[in-house]
Amino acid sequence: MRVGVLGNGQLARMLALAGQPLGQSFRFLEHAAGLGAERGEGAFDSSERGLQAFAADVDVVTFESENWEAATLERAARGAPMHPSPRALALAQDRRSQKELFARLGLASAPFACVDGPDQLAGALERVGLPAILKTRRGGYDGRGQRQLCTARDVAVAQRALGARPAILEAWIPFERELSILAVRAADGARAFYPLTENHHQQGCLRLSLAPARATGELALHAEAMANALLDELEYVGVLALELFEHDGRLLANELAPRVHNSGHWTIEGAETSQFENHLRAITGLPLGSTRALGTCAMLNLLGSVPPAERVLAVPGAHLHLYGKQPAPGRKLGHVTVRARGAAELHQRLQLLAERLELALPDAVTRWMHSSSYAST
Amino acid sequence: MRVGVLGNGQLARMLALAGQPLGQSFRFLEHAAGLGAERGEGAFDSSERGLQAFAADVDVVTFESENWEAATLERAARGAPMHPSPRALALAQDRRSQKELFARLGLASAPFACVDGPDQLAGALERVGLPAILKTRRGGYDGRGQRQLCTARDVAVAQRALGARPAILEAWIPFERELSILAVRAADGARAFYPLTENHHQQGCLRLSLAPARATGELALHAEAMANALLDELEYVGVLALELFEHDGRLLANELAPRVHNSGHWTIEGAETSQFENHLRAITGLPLGSTRALGTCAMLNLLGSVPPAERVLAVPGAHLHLYGKQPAPGRKLGHVTVRARGAAELHQRLQLLAERLELALPDAVTRWMHSSSYAST
Repeated sequence: MRVGVLGNGQLARMLALAGQPLGQSFRFLEHAAGLGAERGEGAFDSSERGLQAFAADVDVVTFESENWEAATLERAARGAPMHPSPRALALAQDRRSQKELFARLGLASAPFACVDGPDQLAGALERVGLPAILKTRRGGYDGRGQRQLCTARDVAVAQRALGARPAILEAWIPFERELSILAVRAADGARAFYPLTENHHQQGCLRLSLAPARATGELALHAEAMANALLDELEYVGVLALELFEHDGRLLANELAPRVHNSGHWTIEGAETSQFENHLRAITGLPLGSTRALGTCAMLNLLGSVPPAERVLAVPGAHLHLYGKQPAPGRKLGHVTVRARGAAELHQRLQLLAERLELALPDAVTRWMHSSSYAST
Repeated sequence: MRVGVLGNGQLARMLALAGQPLGQSFRFLEHAAGLGAERGEGAFDSSERGLQAFAADVDVVTFESENWEAATLERAARGAPMHPSPRALALAQDRRSQKELFARLGLASAPFACVDGPDQLAGALERVGLPAILKTRRGGYDGRGQRQLCTARDVAVAQRALGARPAILEAWIPFERELSILAVRAADGARAFYPLTENHHQQGCLRLSLAPARATGELALHAEAMANALLDELEYVGVLALELFEHDGRLLANELAPRVHNSGHWTIEGAETSQFENHLRAITGLPLGSTRALGTCAMLNLLGSVPPAERVLAVPGAHLHLYGKQPAPGRKLGHVTVRARGAAELHQRLQLLAERLELALPDAVTRWMHSSSYAST
């Protein structure tokens, strides 16, 4: 089975590492924007001719990012089946469509208003109020294309920066926690859900995930029901990630990613079947694998620079994943997963990792590590 | 870090899959004998010039099989550090040296006699008796180069087949069980041992491994002590496998493999750190990873043909590993690892796998599966 991946960054790389043991071979379509990965063997360009050759050479097409032009997707989907579908991707790549989809399915999410031109911001602010977040409708990831608005001055600056790009204005939610749920659906409708993941960001970019998140069974079921509604509506095939806010004991849908997701990297070591393998199983018609967690995991993104491997690997239960990318400030160059038998052991190992790497864990994580509710389990 | 592997079969492939996340890149030296793998990207030939280019291109050299000419090894070792050492490989690739090494270290093993020419077989038979096993000194694997002798007729046939090749004659041990222990040692002397593995063969070839094997702590310590003596004596760096017979409550050393080993494939899913990753950590100077088992595993070799992936993956906890080799009778084309939380669940899943693949498990395994001592744990 030959799998074509639109994109050749770390998600494409980890898909290939998961698929090779299943006898799958991979072709990568280099992203025009350049996601920082080296141009790999078998990379194609995204010209009309490149896409024809690409689609003719594979049995199924998937993608590692949602930032593709509709025309590129259509060309690729003409030559080979594409999972998830171009429709799912089109909905997910536009923040307004996402919000409207959440509303249509009855999934709670932050109040919002459309800002389709510079003259609509004032009206949107009246409806949504401050603080708020202005997000471009397309092209944002890892906090890019987003701006928090607290004061009138913020609004003026943001308006200039936005220019004519269409955007949405979203009420800022004083959430207690950011969570995500990863779900996978096969073409025959079979589905599975990974345990909830708790996510901690620094400067808009995911820094650390903890999984399974401490959560009541009720919260997990609520998250699964939300993901399930999306899988059904989109007749989704593959892995889908739904980012969530926990606020006042309930969950709000934040963002949908129609692909394997950074907050699911812990599943490589931490689940019976990784998100990468399950995505491939789903899109190639194989039975889904168990999403059961194996112990407790923390996943730390390596941003901007890579520590010496020997420091990482001296931490018990630590596993290193480097992406082969050129360093640049803030760029995701790899991640470390620390697996432990339970929260107390994980706590200990994570502290050791922080010492070895001379890094400060996000404040919220330090609090988490000292919260008796988790560390004592 | 660039790792050069002598050989490009499945062990080389699984080493590369384990090393890529660590940021390691791989070069493979194609085995002259052809181990069935497709010639991969970056393969070299073993001519003088090919070896020079190979060694110049890597930071460290290792090997996936012991069947290399001394001259090839020396040429490769001249250009880059080789782990395990050429000396360890030279000792291991000759059955007589292995037996003498066992004797020197006080490791019990089956009585044997040398058969360095056709005229020495009669004398060897007198000393060892029947039944016995005649094994060529070099070049044997997966039961090749071995012949069981029970009758005078067997002896005559074996003598003709052997010709002038040097061999050893080994007393046949009516063992209860075949076990193996995998050990890993770093250059700084740090070492770790995987739990004992129980192995079941069909026609001389490994068919199924069960790990961790049911065994007393005493038996495991005995096996570790035996492996430890070998690690020390050889100043070994990397993963080493020692095959063992269990007979009358004690362990006999059977064969030594100076490399990652088929009976350790279960460690990919079944141990905190796989044998492949630990071999790479050892030879590249990284700290060793934990060898702790994650649940209970069975590893089934796929010999001669590959079943449809969907049948394998429909079994809970089943993981498929295909090697990308052309099918041929008896050839190792892949393996399936089934992981479970305990022996009872593994028992159930293994029966399901056998049904799905319409295969007969080795008799001994069927007995094992019904042995209350294990199935009830």
